[in-house]
Amino acid sequence: MSVYPIILSQTHFTQQEDLTYPFEERGLQFGDGVYEVIRIYDGTYYLLAEHVDRLFRSAEAIKIVLPFSKKEITDLLLNLLDKNGMDSDGIVYMQATRGSAPRTHAFPSETEANVYAYIRDMPCKTDDLSKGVSTITERDTRWENCYIKSLNLLPNVLAKQAAQESNSYEAIFHRDGIVTECSSSNIFLIKNGNIYTHPATKRILHGCVRMRIEQFAANLQIPFIEEAFSTADMAMADELFLSSTTSEVMPIIEVDNKTIANGKPGSITRKIQKAYVQDAALSKVRT
Amino acid sequence: MSVYPIILSQTHFTQQEDLTYPFEERGLQFGDGVYEVIRIYDGTYYLLAEHVDRLFRSAEAIKIVLPFSKKEITDLLLNLLDKNGMDSDGIVYMQATRGSAPRTHAFPSETEANVYAYIRDMPCKTDDLSKGVSTITERDTRWENCYIKSLNLLPNVLAKQAAQESNSYEAIFHRDGIVTECSSSNIFLIKNGNIYTHPATKRILHGCVRMRIEQFAANLQIPFIEEAFSTADMAMADELFLSSTTSEVMPIIEVDNKTIANGKPGSITRKIQKAYVQDAALSKVRT
Repeated sequence: MSVYPIILSQTHFTQQEDLTYPFEERGLQFGDGVYEVIRIYDGTYYLLAEHVDRLFRSAEAIKIVLPFSKKEITDLLLNLLDKNGMDSDGIVYMQATRGSAPRTHAFPSETEANVYAYIRDMPCKTDDLSKGVSTITERDTRWENCYIKSLNLLPNVLAKQAAQESNSYEAIFHRDGIVTECSSSNIFLIKNGNIYTHPATKRILHGCVRMRIEQFAANLQIPFIEEAFSTADMAMADELFLSSTTSEVMPIIEVDNKTIANGKPGSITRKIQKAYVQDAALSKVRT
Repeated sequence: MSVYPIILSQTHFTQQEDLTYPFEERGLQFGDGVYEVIRIYDGTYYLLAEHVDRLFRSAEAIKIVLPFSKKEITDLLLNLLDKNGMDSDGIVYMQATRGSAPRTHAFPSETEANVYAYIRDMPCKTDDLSKGVSTITERDTRWENCYIKSLNLLPNVLAKQAAQESNSYEAIFHRDGIVTECSSSNIFLIKNGNIYTHPATKRILHGCVRMRIEQFAANLQIPFIEEAFSTADMAMADELFLSSTTSEVMPIIEVDNKTIANGKPGSITRKIQKAYVQDAALSKVRT
């Protein structure tokens, strides 16, 4: 995985080796910031406007004033792509923190948001997308405002690590048995031809891919039902899949060592995957 | 508030202007780290061993391997005091993150913890300690593991900011009406000569000053009862106070614009304050 050299820091571009974080960065001391990860296919952003919109929503939710307009950050991100000469598959990671100031919990009165963004290679997870992945379940111990894409990710880190130690791809969060989402993805259950997923409340991230899946389902005339399901429901699911920027539409074939259905990605999951690939291809034309 | 120039970074000392954070610092991207703030009186640490112990407990809880022993970090912190020529009242802020590595939620396989520490001036809050402070109540929306002193502090930041916007000193957290602690301090209620405080479960930070207060109460033969109280109980309290490294033993005279008792710090609070001052003075001799 190669790191591209040119980074957006505030509204300047800089080489990685020249990047310095300010002293008493509130992102580092409080996780006081928000972020986005945006997919790049063949050198083109996928769902760029959706991610930029969400960055603004997250920032607004915690009262961070971003030092640019949506148009300006979009232009800067496109510029970053060019400066990196990016023409393959990858991601951009972008974060905005409340800034830097002598450490005290309340907002500092005079500081401007610190913004960083950089691009990385990320090939498609072709093998996993084809075969499906194993998962584990974990109690959702997170705070109540998981719709904010903040830098407070410690419970997500710990859950993902637990999954990895169980040779699993992802950890499925549940609150008292009710499935919310995964440590870094949304989750969907298919039963009797319907797609079920947790409503877009404050308890889950409102995934950009999740939003597209709702559209794909509408186009395919598959009922998309925003209704939470339980860990017990998963054991009896016809199909299960998860979605995220980096995982795309990923079939789940195992939960806590129990095989889901026949242990192969199901037909509705395949249809959604196909719709995703078409949408990502079309987005190059749209941009 | 002056920043002292010499910083402990890893096990090296450096001038502030020479401090650079590594690229993809997990503290900055995930809040994947733990921290401590230790009080300095007249150039001497107060409760140093207790804070170092807790740093190790927090790190262990999230499986960060600290790159030093308790003895080594203690020596480094004492050395930091000397190098700064610190002989007045202040604090040391110290944090340890899981390190830096290409961004992915699960623990990186090969990285060493990043450690930063620096010293600041912090005079005693004499006026507030004498008169007492106003507070507000806020819903405790935090994650379940508040006993870990982690860098995931966004809910604490938002609550403290809400307090500040209400011209209050601190926000008192409650879960469904049951008081846990404050945004950056523990809280104590006095009724009929007893001190009540939330048990040291996973839902609150096990404050170093809180631990000392339990001792002070024992010495003063004041019953110290680890039993949670409600927001309704606060309205009928004889006395209320909060405690933390920077707030010491701080009387609360108002909650949500309602005066507590006669609006003056109570006699048991005064006794605990006095015990604190004596303990801090004695610690200079002990060190």
